[in-house]
Amino acid sequence: MSDAVSTTLSPTPRSTVGRHRERGATDRAALYDVLDHGLVCHLALVRDGAPVVLPTGYGRIGDTLYVHGSSGARWLREGGVPVCATVTHLDGIVYARSAFHFSMNYRSAVAHGTARLVTAEPERTDALRAIVEHLAPGSWDYTRQPTRRELAATAVLALDLDEASVKIRTGPPADDPEDLSPEVWAGVVPLTSTLGTPRPDPHVPADAPIPPHVTTRTVSGNCP
Amino acid sequence: MSDAVSTTLSPTPRSTVGRHRERGATDRAALYDVLDHGLVCHLALVRDGAPVVLPTGYGRIGDTLYVHGSSGARWLREGGVPVCATVTHLDGIVYARSAFHFSMNYRSAVAHGTARLVTAEPERTDALRAIVEHLAPGSWDYTRQPTRRELAATAVLALDLDEASVKIRTGPPADDPEDLSPEVWAGVVPLTSTLGTPRPDPHVPADAPIPPHVTTRTVSGNCP
Repeated sequence: MSDAVSTTLSPTPRSTVGRHRERGATDRAALYDVLDHGLVCHLALVRDGAPVVLPTGYGRIGDTLYVHGSSGARWLREGGVPVCATVTHLDGIVYARSAFHFSMNYRSAVAHGTARLVTAEPERTDALRAIVEHLAPGSWDYTRQPTRRELAATAVLALDLDEASVKIRTGPPADDPEDLSPEVWAGVVPLTSTLGTPRPDPHVPADAPIPPHVTTRTVSGNCP
Repeated sequence: MSDAVSTTLSPTPRSTVGRHRERGATDRAALYDVLDHGLVCHLALVRDGAPVVLPTGYGRIGDTLYVHGSSGARWLREGGVPVCATVTHLDGIVYARSAFHFSMNYRSAVAHGTARLVTAEPERTDALRAIVEHLAPGSWDYTRQPTRRELAATAVLALDLDEASVKIRTGPPADDPEDLSPEVWAGVVPLTSTLGTPRPDPHVPADAPIPPHVTTRTVSGNCP
């Protein structure tokens, strides 16, 4: 994905140092924006020398990203290991006049760090609340809280957002001047994620109203 | 993401061995289906012992996944290294009656293997065509083909789809029986990706028609 603006939130070699470094003042806000508007991160770790990348939900509290999963899952029992978490939004397909310049409009955030297994309270419960609230705002207080048994079955990992980068591509194709023939169409096909009409669970009574924290969310239409 | 059906396309330890292994007959079709309906994969590799995961476009020819990028990019110059490529579709947000059972409906494919730097023809050009056609069907023949200079600036990596798994979660929340109170709403909020009205590049004449390979695609509305 070329033609993108890249902002680096920390000056380490593995954070991509891109153009427009003068935009540094807005970097952390851009990171929060990408993370807070996503639903899934792709979390990578190394196992037996090979990378593994899995999709998972997440939540953010300040400068910490939290993920969770079954405490029986190998990849979640491993605190203290290097991880990378990436959140990507696709905003459009960029049709160019040359095959070389086809691209996508997108916003992505990449965070590097060492995963920390979260075992202490109140951080652990705060993290679980953040993960549920990120996925489904208003749901933590509306639903039954986790039991001790459920908490024991859940592993929580934290990734500090110290070392992260944001890349954003917007706008039309970046064709070469000699390709700007009026005969060839070029442009952007926008791509949007939309939340549809809620489908009640079969056990929900037919006349049960959909609660406001669900209806207000889906009214906006956009994700999340 | 729990409550999912997992299918394994190869019996290696790192391919998740999940439930419903009797569905093996449809596994490869399920893999193709997830890959062919995505636009971006999250490609992970290991650098200095730490994982890096980046979003990138891709194409598929038979049982090979292809990605490309700038031949100046570190991560694309490295053939012969272990990689993992994951494609994820989010289909819905699963609202449960207990915080523990919140989930997402999704389809994901995870492929493990050793990346191969593609240098020989016709595979290299075939791969580039597959990547462009995957992103924007009908575009390869419509647009200017790559020059020798552009080809030199492009690196192509191949990942054989020998070792891959597919996970799919569908349906309502998996609440515990004791939580099925009629007082608490639960259900699924569907999530769809939609292609919008094409936006012509500023250099395209105002009366220029949008070509059929773009209009037919966007009529369907769904991605890709």
